[in-house]
Amino acid sequence: MTSEEARKHESLNVAIVVAGAAGVGVGAVLADLGLDSYAILERDDVGASFQQWPEEMRLITPSFPSNSFGCRDLNAVTTDTSPAFALDREHSTGGEYAEYLQGVVEFHDLPIRTGVDVESVQRHDDGFILHTSTGVIQSRFVIWAAGQFEQPNDDPFPGANHSLHNSRVESWSAFADECIEDPIVVVGGYESGIDAALALADLGHEVFVVDEDGSWQFRGPDPSEVLSPYTSQRLREALEHDAPIALEDGIRVERVDVEEGTFDVIGTDGASFTTRNQPVLATGFESGLGIVDEHFEFESGQPRLTDQDGSTISPGLFLAGPQVAHNGQQFCSIYKFRQRFAVVADEIATRLDVDRTVLDEYREKNMFLEDLSCCEPDMCDC
Amino acid sequence: MTSEEARKHESLNVAIVVAGAAGVGVGAVLADLGLDSYAILERDDVGASFQQWPEEMRLITPSFPSNSFGCRDLNAVTTDTSPAFALDREHSTGGEYAEYLQGVVEFHDLPIRTGVDVESVQRHDDGFILHTSTGVIQSRFVIWAAGQFEQPNDDPFPGANHSLHNSRVESWSAFADECIEDPIVVVGGYESGIDAALALADLGHEVFVVDEDGSWQFRGPDPSEVLSPYTSQRLREALEHDAPIALEDGIRVERVDVEEGTFDVIGTDGASFTTRNQPVLATGFESGLGIVDEHFEFESGQPRLTDQDGSTISPGLFLAGPQVAHNGQQFCSIYKFRQRFAVVADEIATRLDVDRTVLDEYREKNMFLEDLSCCEPDMCDC
Repeated sequence: MTSEEARKHESLNVAIVVAGAAGVGVGAVLADLGLDSYAILERDDVGASFQQWPEEMRLITPSFPSNSFGCRDLNAVTTDTSPAFALDREHSTGGEYAEYLQGVVEFHDLPIRTGVDVESVQRHDDGFILHTSTGVIQSRFVIWAAGQFEQPNDDPFPGANHSLHNSRVESWSAFADECIEDPIVVVGGYESGIDAALALADLGHEVFVVDEDGSWQFRGPDPSEVLSPYTSQRLREALEHDAPIALEDGIRVERVDVEEGTFDVIGTDGASFTTRNQPVLATGFESGLGIVDEHFEFESGQPRLTDQDGSTISPGLFLAGPQVAHNGQQFCSIYKFRQRFAVVADEIATRLDVDRTVLDEYREKNMFLEDLSCCEPDMCDC
Repeated sequence: MTSEEARKHESLNVAIVVAGAAGVGVGAVLADLGLDSYAILERDDVGASFQQWPEEMRLITPSFPSNSFGCRDLNAVTTDTSPAFALDREHSTGGEYAEYLQGVVEFHDLPIRTGVDVESVQRHDDGFILHTSTGVIQSRFVIWAAGQFEQPNDDPFPGANHSLHNSRVESWSAFADECIEDPIVVVGGYESGIDAALALADLGHEVFVVDEDGSWQFRGPDPSEVLSPYTSQRLREALEHDAPIALEDGIRVERVDVEEGTFDVIGTDGASFTTRNQPVLATGFESGLGIVDEHFEFESGQPRLTDQDGSTISPGLFLAGPQVAHNGQQFCSIYKFRQRFAVVADEIATRLDVDRTVLDEYREKNMFLEDLSCCEPDMCDC
């Protein structure tokens, strides 16, 4: 058997699927534990989904190099790194953040394999068989860290296919160049919708943001439920400077009609927005887990998880990243879900009988969240 | 004795001097401990020194409402509050931050006494006598939390009195209105100097920033040694947009000569900047502690402290705030010095024989930094 063939039927202890923030972060914990039989499988490059952000888009959580005083950089995926320090900015672009992840990979010398597309994950004996574009991998444990940005929710209503999902926009500037002097309709008014509106208004276009809830009106202590301060402040400042943004709440879009190059965005109560510019969908992402859907139970669209973020029906398969949820609380930001990397790693290390003392540091540094009762906003209004 | 007279000779367990970020923060810990015989003495209003910032100036550390996931808001002074949530912005003005502090005072119902100017602090028996503008207070312990913004370093070289210290500027816009079309010279190129230059350039003025070290050229993991990402990024963007800012490093200003309304800022090696606009001093603050200087030993301008931030020569007198330093590391930002509030409170509670279990929560929430060995930047370059 040549080494090429050997690679094609290789056996691992842990396969991490996708080298994004979650895959790199959980991979770094396994490196700290001294695991050698594991790999991070990535179809494209490290941080590929960040690289695909519209070029004007920025991380909404601020980075700050405060590690040495017990305050982790909110966007760090390891205990010892800081995107603020690496990139010297608070709100990096997706491309810059991918650079940071690449830096972490190099610093921790993580076993990344790029160009490996995982096509299926099947149970086999006490583990899993992964069919990939470069061969078959057998792995005792699988950590699914594919994020959600791979599956845009771009068919939420009839006619949505005539629109463009914001995650498919390379740059708002290029998109705006294609637009004519007519309003641009953005469907969805949470982070990405407001971000699109701000970028387009900044480029001189009139924008209608249509949303059922109108999250821009609300405040609350959890930034996954209301606009982040970054977005909220930019919106407020734009409106104070008479940016041509109209915020339309209480309207659920029911369909988009197209006739002779004119788009008619039809909402509840007969609301209608007519424009000759292609509507933008800022409708978020599918809640499913793609090819591993069958390995999870779902409840209200959320994968059910054990206390160690494992599948409840497919032992040995773990979830890492923004789709982790417990007690109705979504761990959808880096500073939230990174606290579960060590929980997953701890469980796997236990089963592999690997020394786990190195994880004490994760506890000390607030990167090992076991007690889930605390995951509820508990702040006063100041 | 009338109650008015009684107040004039009152006795306290703890007197906290000045209701700024440190005074309010350490006061909240004493409230949590259930202390009733203490007061926070403040000459003006809560957060007065923040209120005096130039109106364009912003906090350089970003606020974010991440409390419920184990990441304290960097600018919070208590475990349960977040300026980001209270103010809905990342980088508040000084005035907004003072509002936040006022909110904390109200929420925790802290015993603030405004309009009380502490004129002297003298040892007396086992405690201290404080002479104040409203009477005499005897206190067993004193926590000096006066910050450093009260003592601008505005006489660093001959002729400096012809300049204006940036901390005395109410707004850069009003200052700029008084300027003529001639460059503005800013002496000092750290945070406040660059902030002044950015604000003045934004208002259309040509600015020379003169500094010996030129901190804008350096990077490092500790934002107290290099420009913060907030300032660094704004400077970079301004220069990319051809803002009229000239950065002159390697020049130590030796004096300012004034003749017929013309200011000549003279530096090392014959460097000279001549302008008809009043130079701006961004030369920071005095390192002394004002009226309690005599109660501390000083070493290279830093007050020496016990492991509990007490004076080494005047037992019972503690320091809280940006002038706390250990191992050559300055606790000069809120996210740094707030971790010492509970250390001071713990020591006082021990001596008063007060139950301290409530302080466990401070340990859990990274607001109780005892092990000072960790206060060294320990990050990799990513």
